Amino acid sequence: MGEYIYSFNEGSGDMKALLGGKGANLSEMIQLGLPIPFGFVVTTAACRRFYRDDYQIDQEIREEILLKLSEVENVTGKLFGNPENPLLLSLRADGEKVMPGMLDCILNIGMNDEIAEGICKLTKNHRFAYDCYRRLIQAFGCVVYGISPSKFEDILEVQKEEAGCSEDSELPPDELKEVIDKFKKIIKKETGREFEQNPVEQLMMGISAAFRSWNGKKALYYRRLANIRGIDATAVCVQSMVFGNLGKHSGTGVVFTRNPMDGTKEIFGEFLINAQGDDLRLGKNAPKHFCKLENAFPDVHKSLPKICDILEKHYKDVQEIEFTIEKGRLYILNTANAMRTGIAAIRTAVEMENEELIDRNMAVARIDTTQFDQFRYPIFKKEDYAQAQLQTRGLVAGTPVSPGAAVGRIYFNTADALAAHDDGIRVILVRENLSVENLAGMAIADGMITSLGGKTSHGASVVRTMGKCCIACYNDVKINEERKTLEICGEIFKEGDAVSLDGNVGVVYRGKIGTTRPEYSDDFNKIMKWADEIRTLKVRANVDDTAQAREAIELGAEGIGLLRTESMFFSKEHLTAVRRMILADDAVERREALAMLLAAQKSDFFEIYDIMEDRPVTVRLLDPPLHALLPHSPEEIRTLSEQLGISYNKLTKKVTALQEFNPMMGHRGCRLSVTYPEIAEMQAEAATMAAIELKRKRGIDVVPEFIIPLVALEKEIEYVKKIVVSTIERCIAREKVQLKYLVGSMIEVPRAAIIADSLAKEADFFSFGSDDLTQMTFGLSRDDAGEIMKDYSDKQIFDDNPFKTIDQSGVGKLIKLAVRQGRAVKPNIKLGICGAHGGDPVTIGFCNELGFNYVSCIPRKLPVARLAAAQAAIAAAKE
Amino acid sequence: MGEYIYSFNEGSGDMKALLGGKGANLSEMIQLGLPIPFGFVVTTAACRRFYRDDYQIDQEIREEILLKLSEVENVTGKLFGNPENPLLLSLRADGEKVMPGMLDCILNIGMNDEIAEGICKLTKNHRFAYDCYRRLIQAFGCVVYGISPSKFEDILEVQKEEAGCSEDSELPPDELKEVIDKFKKIIKKETGREFEQNPVEQLMMGISAAFRSWNGKKALYYRRLANIRGIDATAVCVQSMVFGNLGKHSGTGVVFTRNPMDGTKEIFGEFLINAQGDDLRLGKNAPKHFCKLENAFPDVHKSLPKICDILEKHYKDVQEIEFTIEKGRLYILNTANAMRTGIAAIRTAVEMENEELIDRNMAVARIDTTQFDQFRYPIFKKEDYAQAQLQTRGLVAGTPVSPGAAVGRIYFNTADALAAHDDGIRVILVRENLSVENLAGMAIADGMITSLGGKTSHGASVVRTMGKCCIACYNDVKINEERKTLEICGEIFKEGDAVSLDGNVGVVYRGKIGTTRPEYSDDFNKIMKWADEIRTLKVRANVDDTAQAREAIELGAEGIGLLRTESMFFSKEHLTAVRRMILADDAVERREALAMLLAAQKSDFFEIYDIMEDRPVTVRLLDPPLHALLPHSPEEIRTLSEQLGISYNKLTKKVTALQEFNPMMGHRGCRLSVTYPEIAEMQAEAATMAAIELKRKRGIDVVPEFIIPLVALEKEIEYVKKIVVSTIERCIAREKVQLKYLVGSMIEVPRAAIIADSLAKEADFFSFGSDDLTQMTFGLSRDDAGEIMKDYSDKQIFDDNPFKTIDQSGVGKLIKLAVRQGRAVKPNIKLGICGAHGGDPVTIGFCNELGFNYVSCIPRKLPVARLAAAQAAIAAAKE
Repeated sequence: MGEYIYSFNEGSGDMKALLGGKGANLSEMIQLGLPIPFGFVVTTAACRRFYRDDYQIDQEIREEILLKLSEVENVTGKLFGNPENPLLLSLRADGEKVMPGMLDCILNIGMNDEIAEGICKLTKNHRFAYDCYRRLIQAFGCVVYGISPSKFEDILEVQKEEAGCSEDSELPPDELKEVIDKFKKIIKKETGREFEQNPVEQLMMGISAAFRSWNGKKALYYRRLANIRGIDATAVCVQSMVFGNLGKHSGTGVVFTRNPMDGTKEIFGEFLINAQGDDLRLGKNAPKHFCKLENAFPDVHKSLPKICDILEKHYKDVQEIEFTIEKGRLYILNTANAMRTGIAAIRTAVEMENEELIDRNMAVARIDTTQFDQFRYPIFKKEDYAQAQLQTRGLVAGTPVSPGAAVGRIYFNTADALAAHDDGIRVILVRENLSVENLAGMAIADGMITSLGGKTSHGASVVRTMGKCCIACYNDVKINEERKTLEICGEIFKEGDAVSLDGNVGVVYRGKIGTTRPEYSDDFNKIMKWADEIRTLKVRANVDDTAQAREAIELGAEGIGLLRTESMFFSKEHLTAVRRMILADDAVERREALAMLLAAQKSDFFEIYDIMEDRPVTVRLLDPPLHALLPHSPEEIRTLSEQLGISYNKLTKKVTALQEFNPMMGHRGCRLSVTYPEIAEMQAEAATMAAIELKRKRGIDVVPEFIIPLVALEKEIEYVKKIVVSTIERCIAREKVQLKYLVGSMIEVPRAAIIADSLAKEADFFSFGSDDLTQMTFGLSRDDAGEIMKDYSDKQIFDDNPFKTIDQSGVGKLIKLAVRQGRAVKPNIKLGICGAHGGDPVTIGFCNELGFNYVSCIPRKLPVARLAAAQAAIAAAKE
Repeated sequence: MGEYIYSFNEGSGDMKALLGGKGANLSEMIQLGLPIPFGFVVTTAACRRFYRDDYQIDQEIREEILLKLSEVENVTGKLFGNPENPLLLSLRADGEKVMPGMLDCILNIGMNDEIAEGICKLTKNHRFAYDCYRRLIQAFGCVVYGISPSKFEDILEVQKEEAGCSEDSELPPDELKEVIDKFKKIIKKETGREFEQNPVEQLMMGISAAFRSWNGKKALYYRRLANIRGIDATAVCVQSMVFGNLGKHSGTGVVFTRNPMDGTKEIFGEFLINAQGDDLRLGKNAPKHFCKLENAFPDVHKSLPKICDILEKHYKDVQEIEFTIEKGRLYILNTANAMRTGIAAIRTAVEMENEELIDRNMAVARIDTTQFDQFRYPIFKKEDYAQAQLQTRGLVAGTPVSPGAAVGRIYFNTADALAAHDDGIRVILVRENLSVENLAGMAIADGMITSLGGKTSHGASVVRTMGKCCIACYNDVKINEERKTLEICGEIFKEGDAVSLDGNVGVVYRGKIGTTRPEYSDDFNKIMKWADEIRTLKVRANVDDTAQAREAIELGAEGIGLLRTESMFFSKEHLTAVRRMILADDAVERREALAMLLAAQKSDFFEIYDIMEDRPVTVRLLDPPLHALLPHSPEEIRTLSEQLGISYNKLTKKVTALQEFNPMMGHRGCRLSVTYPEIAEMQAEAATMAAIELKRKRGIDVVPEFIIPLVALEKEIEYVKKIVVSTIERCIAREKVQLKYLVGSMIEVPRAAIIADSLAKEADFFSFGSDDLTQMTFGLSRDDAGEIMKDYSDKQIFDDNPFKTIDQSGVGKLIKLAVRQGRAVKPNIKLGICGAHGGDPVTIGFCNELGFNYVSCIPRKLPVARLAAAQAAIAAAKE
């Protein structure tokens, strides 16, 4: 058994990296004894070899494919390319991770003129034979030759119109034959070549195209969106066809073992009669609800729930299962862990734990942190919603595809939607099909309306995973994408018109309905409780003011990892005093201005401590360059000049003198404390006196952790620490109290990481300012990176946005170096991170691995950080 | 023998680190049998202990001092503190490196009321007794109590005026007694304490003050100026006094074994009759020329040259020797390697090699690279000088103290001189005394005029080492520092008046005389030839254009380490096309504009190659952010809008859109090549075609080394290298020639150093862009660092300017990491440096140690780089 080709009966469920998700699951299901059409997998190893061989299938692999093909012939008793007993094949690319509809798929491979006639003879079902053939030519044209799908769709539409049919399946054989001829002409016209008649060549060309589709635009975009990384190839499943399009006793469908919208424990599914699988998955048709299966296929309706049960218990997770019914006989084409909304994910995890299907660790590990924002996605405000009802603004009861509320303006294609989004408009995307072709538009839209495409299409799965509200309205709705009109119950909406969607029931409302944020659900709180019990990493918040401190406590913060003291400086009431301080001519004047700020800053600190109670608070000394605190426009300067009694010219000169070419690398951070020790003194005094006051008033011992920003040199921290410590000690002596405190160093300049051993001599703790550290390590200013990031992302130079997830091979190496060196000097040195990365799950895993004491992030990210910390602990325990 | 105190007969010449230069040399000279007043050294170890003990002399050390003191009593036969046979001591602080006059010195320790009277009785020389006593009180007041010297000087001046004396030595005993009383009153008034009468306490207080003077302002400033680092303490020599002020058969003097101005092999010296050593060294008196020694002290005149010869041969270097004559008997007080001008340094090195006193390595190793700029210090233009002679603008023939020509405006104190210098004015500092008190002023002045202070004062040594022209005019010159007037031969000059100094003959000219740069001397060329033979590190130049390329060849460049291609873009003739390229709406338009630039860029490259012949040329792809190439003022934008036919508004919008917050970390370097591959293509084509043309026209094989700037990611270099290589290969194929070329990576972003192993897979060579690497590693923008650097230097946070000398403990660690990682992948990867540090001797040593292939610097720095590379090789061979 080489590594390139595996028959389904040779593989197993844990071989996803080699066989892809689909290949592994099919192998697994064969072992479970389920009815699977036989086939084999061309592996990811073969795909990698294909890339290395300059996009050619190696002769050896080609021969192995043919060898496996004869096995399939043996199992099925059919012969590939033989018109008298033809084997047809489906071909589906699928990688290690689920990428719904992003990779290419071709059905009915092995069809040609001769075989079509053979099938006519064999089955007497001309419609079936020609339908299969036109499907192959169409898919082949799009996938292998890259011809625009609309070229084929248009012909089909015209033909249906002329024939007076509304459904594809209604087209009579003669019309289909005409369609086939027209399709062939398109291929000839677009490629200069005849449609390939040799079945083996069809197979090889199809496999090549499937391999190539791994790096198609859609796939690349989706992987970036879904944060799928470190996978570099796809496998391809080659499977004998079973036919859902053999007449009214045949069909195709998809079931979810639980409801993927809200997680309810019920079978959730759709099907189409006389159709092939893709008809449902591509979202171009209006399918039938699962409840109607009983009438159409009573046997299947009985057996399918049993299979659902087997598969869910086997995989210990919600499954989405593709099936085809060929002349009443059920075949399972695929199963996979079901894509679902965040809410459904939480509910199913909690309930499965309750059912003892999984344990708490697995329940926690299973929650996808990227879905976390969904838990606070808007719901309608009660009163506004009631009013909309009273005004009878609700228009249509469509099928809810993805739950939630969405309010926005309608746009009819991705380009328009993106442009509107860029202008800050909330977008509702309106499309006929619920297809993943509109991925970029879906990603930025708040909601979606479609007139086709069921709840089990790939598009539906994607939109649900994103947590976007979506309604499919099959009746009373006409969408004209060309003219950009949406007609609902006779009422016309145009581009830019405002609507509100209720994705829970499927109603579209005229105009906007006010929204609010929901409370976290009980299921959510249960998961968070479990997560808190599991994790060892503490989670703190980055905070500017009391409001944020309160939010932080509410969301589970165990302390403040970064209190930005300058935010207080920016407040209107203090700004003038701050500016007086900055513009002081000498240290004496500066001290006078600072004395005015002392009381205000002290009371700011007191309020924060008061909220945080005995949780640690990390106070960062003033960090931004002083010019950031000054006005810049002539009018503002004039106003300030009057306020402070400084001449306009002098003031302008001072403001100009403080300007910098590269402010990020300018006079800021601890450099300010070196130049103006008075500022650091004032802040240290304010923070200390506030702690003493809290102790006296409430008996609470707060331990302020002073952090010195932008340290690059040992002597900097020595110098500034001396100022801070002597100020604190003076306060302690004067007030005759006891007070614990720490003094730490930010590690946010590359040099700080390099000399962390020296810094550890002075610092009680390190806090990694990963934002600046990333900027300086890359030499890339985030403020200026807009266009660069876009280019780099398009050209695949960045795997990841390094400002979101820590760049482990660069910045991460520096962090590791700092940790190693810091611990060499002070084995138990306290370690935290307070950059934007502190709320990023991958980074949290990295910090957990390095044995950090805490991560600190904006309050909003606290829940995700708590969960990610728990998941990191679970992953670490596994290793 | 503890480590704290050494008698002179216990030490040796190689113990400078412990005993200081003076202590070690005195020990050495005792062994040579020279007449040295006996004494002992309180070592640098004792000094360090003193600092640790909170500036107290430990009891143990105190007792050791007293023990050694009794040895001195035994040797001299005198008793410390005994009025009947009193031992007096001198006390001189001196560290491992020579710091002329920067550390404190006190003579006549052991004097008090009682002992003064005792000496009167013993010697019958009341003047001598009181002179010694007033000197002690004066020095003690300044050094121990920190009283301003002028307080004492003023009293002395008034007393002399009242007594009608012009010299200190003329003051009669009674007047001196009055001076002593007045001095004591100053001490009482300033300190509230009586002048210390206990000799032992005097000694201990003096030693403490000497230790403290190591961190005095003057010493700190000098160490920074002279780049003396890594030394943290001083030793103190305690020596029995011999007296040059015992009457007309006594005196004091300094001789250099060769002329420190130009290196001539002749004894060069001065002396004073009836004076103590400091009278000469402090530059407050007009001394007598050495040639007059024969008349005054015929025996000494005979014996001194022999001692000079012994010492020069012993130390194998020019010596400066302090001596005192007590009643006709010669004592040597000190010897040290002589401070000298750069020109003298070169000449003496070459001549000593010729005399076989030293070998070539030593001759090369001995040249101080910090003096290198002196070899191109201005000389007068012949014609201008002749005209000044014709116009008889020459005013006075003073004593030339330091040679050369200087033209500037006169200022009378350091503060004024610094202010003028800051305004861009060339300064001639005018001071009565030639004293190191004016160090900061001397450092920025182009020349100096004094009315006192000889050629052997500390001030003279310092000014010569700096290579600054200096004239001492004892006659016909009056300097009034208060009124800021300089009177020469009756003509009055005021602050800001222009003068020109001829330091070779000592003439001051009215007005400005044009200057030019001298050719390098034969001695210089000889040293450079030796250096080139010794060094292994190649030396290349950073070059913008053909003029610089020619200069580089002239100054010994072995290639171009950095050819900045953007300089060509900035030229007037190309700028419009460049701007058209930047403002192009799409790649097509951009290619059109680039096509226009191609020919020009190719011819630029051709000219450079043509000059460099077969030397390697490193071509850097376009680096600066594009906005740097655009106009910014409304007028310029309007002009350009007319030139290019783009509307003013559109152009303004484009210019604004390209602005950046932190341009240094913005859209520049290889990021430009990623966004606009067309630019890199054009540059690669131009550089390749130029090389092909040179080969065809002149048969010269140039090997262009393409370097990709600002690389931070492996995929960046992959991407850009592919563009460059495919362009080059296309040209080679089209032109059917053979051409070698390299493609390398700049390491100038911290991340590049961190992932150097990955980069080495793609790069043929690394060039360290140490300027940006330093900025980003420190997170400090050089453009904005002005005020910060000043503060950091003042507060001793920076040991060194990291933009001048590579920061070995931070940036240097990154460089080492990159080298290690690069070599792990490609053992022979070529390594160079092309930042400003490439011309810095310390950095060159660092690069040599790491086995770099070359350093690259601005052409002007090439000679110093060649020498430094040789010195590094010599140092490495020693280890």
